[in-house]
Amino acid sequence: MDRAPTDAPRLTTPTLQDVAARAGVSTATVSRALNFPDRVAAATRDRVMQAVADLGYSPNFGARAMAARRTNTIGAIIPTMENAIFARGLQAFQDGLRAEGFTLLVASSAYSAAEEEEQIRTLVARGADGLLLIGHERDRRIRDFLDARGIPALVTWAFDANAAHPSVGFDNRAAMRTLADRAIEMGHSRLAMISADTVGNDRAAERVAGVRKAMAAAGLDAADLTVIVTPYGIDNGGRALAQLMARDRAPTVVLCGNDVLAVGALRQARLMGLDVPGDLSITGFDDIELAQVAVPELTTVHVPHRKMGAEAARVLARMVRDGAPAEAVKLPADLRMRASLAPPRARRGGPRMWWPGASRR
Amino acid sequence: MDRAPTDAPRLTTPTLQDVAARAGVSTATVSRALNFPDRVAAATRDRVMQAVADLGYSPNFGARAMAARRTNTIGAIIPTMENAIFARGLQAFQDGLRAEGFTLLVASSAYSAAEEEEQIRTLVARGADGLLLIGHERDRRIRDFLDARGIPALVTWAFDANAAHPSVGFDNRAAMRTLADRAIEMGHSRLAMISADTVGNDRAAERVAGVRKAMAAAGLDAADLTVIVTPYGIDNGGRALAQLMARDRAPTVVLCGNDVLAVGALRQARLMGLDVPGDLSITGFDDIELAQVAVPELTTVHVPHRKMGAEAARVLARMVRDGAPAEAVKLPADLRMRASLAPPRARRGGPRMWWPGASRR
Repeated sequence: MDRAPTDAPRLTTPTLQDVAARAGVSTATVSRALNFPDRVAAATRDRVMQAVADLGYSPNFGARAMAARRTNTIGAIIPTMENAIFARGLQAFQDGLRAEGFTLLVASSAYSAAEEEEQIRTLVARGADGLLLIGHERDRRIRDFLDARGIPALVTWAFDANAAHPSVGFDNRAAMRTLADRAIEMGHSRLAMISADTVGNDRAAERVAGVRKAMAAAGLDAADLTVIVTPYGIDNGGRALAQLMARDRAPTVVLCGNDVLAVGALRQARLMGLDVPGDLSITGFDDIELAQVAVPELTTVHVPHRKMGAEAARVLARMVRDGAPAEAVKLPADLRMRASLAPPRARRGGPRMWWPGASRR
Repeated sequence: MDRAPTDAPRLTTPTLQDVAARAGVSTATVSRALNFPDRVAAATRDRVMQAVADLGYSPNFGARAMAARRTNTIGAIIPTMENAIFARGLQAFQDGLRAEGFTLLVASSAYSAAEEEEQIRTLVARGADGLLLIGHERDRRIRDFLDARGIPALVTWAFDANAAHPSVGFDNRAAMRTLADRAIEMGHSRLAMISADTVGNDRAAERVAGVRKAMAAAGLDAADLTVIVTPYGIDNGGRALAQLMARDRAPTVVLCGNDVLAVGALRQARLMGLDVPGDLSITGFDDIELAQVAVPELTTVHVPHRKMGAEAARVLARMVRDGAPAEAVKLPADLRMRASLAPPRARRGGPRMWWPGASRR
């Protein structure tokens, strides 16, 4: 637990006046910077937040336990509302919160760190008692901002026991490694990936790392892994697959960073006359509904959306209500073996067929 | 426009004291009932809201035009976060709001009127400047609550020029009727529907009405239409299809209330060995990404998600910022003819085949 304790006494308690003096502003400005950060010039806000961090000032010090101060509202910031990636987990989170007496407000950041920060400040200014965030990667300033206000934050969709905020999630790297291990065991040696941008997205980065780790462990050169980076989206998955198959050494299996990209890749393969899994295996990650609607059904990593959402609600409600130390909860993310992954054709002894124009070695 | 004008002078302006006297409570209670309705007993809140409505009291009377009072936050309440039905439109709404300088906070009501009302109150208490709501059907009390506080609300996913709140949407009944007309023109006379519960869901009710209207216009008995009602969900769509096909007079076309149900029906048809569209046509409504991932691709009604979200952002931003009278915007919702709808086999002269055990007349 490296969140500042919020209901234990300290030896010295810095005051609002201390913060104002250190930042060289009025106490009214400090108050405004904390409560309505969007109404204060960025430079002033930074100065105030620096003073808050330096002094370890907490405006709600000792007050979080007072039920009267709570608004019973929890905020969640997800990277996107499109594509239903976060939909089921979020719905379970909301169902869990409702049972605990909280209302959920959701904002989406379009995978932008700057927008996420703005939305965190908005939700806090609007009185959120606690926040659910996706993934661990964000600026240290945000943690300081939340700590200074005594707002508990819980991370999900990732798990890292050593990160700034506690998490209820799963190990993205290990899960993707298990899937890549399975593909390699089946005889695949020409692996490729279609991934979201890994900058500012630790889930995507960990999934790529998992494939590399599996390759290295199997004696394959991980530097050989071609990774096409593209925003999540069905059409983007399709375009990326076309690029991969036009390469000199086309892959026999394409591991996609999520189901949305994978379904786009499947569709493109169909348009190109490629048989999946006969000519090419394709896998996803998430196990959203798309995965079982796809033809062939998609081999993927099952993210425990409902369980994760429900556990996150339970843990965050305790953090907010009881000031309970956060419980880190690591959930399993298992493989779902379906028809889209099979041994490569050479391995199965059948003829190797490629669509015209792309047949290279 | 039946929203109370918010920036024009009135002849007499009721005060907080007037409301308190009429409700028989203190002014502090009135204030709390308006700002934190969840902290006031329901009976007291109702009494205060009745007094507010009787007197036409508006706590923000004349103040909405003051930029300083605005929080630049807009709330949206959607029926569900699952299944991506509202995802794309909402993302476009958020993108549009961001361009206008607003942050979006979203809540989901699980298709429950009571939860929607609670979330409206929460968003208003948290300072929302305006609200986006799905569909027109809701208790009169909610409109009074919003009017009393001068909070503009815009309805989307439906269009009704005569409803309490202005709308940016499309005509659900006309769109579904166009699709049913097309099926009937192709030679289908045994129509069935899989629909969401029509109680409290005007979009679902209008879609069923559209099919009935098409049948009546074509001289078919609209009372013959079998409608299976089930919550939106892929598995539910599948179960409903199995029920329909087990009936004495199995349909030749199943019109589904949305794409999620339709994709579930498609999947179930595949499991039952039915060829779509050879043995059975299946259609959807929404044109979400699922529709083109399905095999065969789904004939459906294209809801203009992005256009609708963008227009709703533009109109609501004007309502909030300028106190502009709401512009009603009716958008087209066209058919997307794809492979899942075709003339019935008898019409095409081929053999009529059914899977064993369900072949009746």
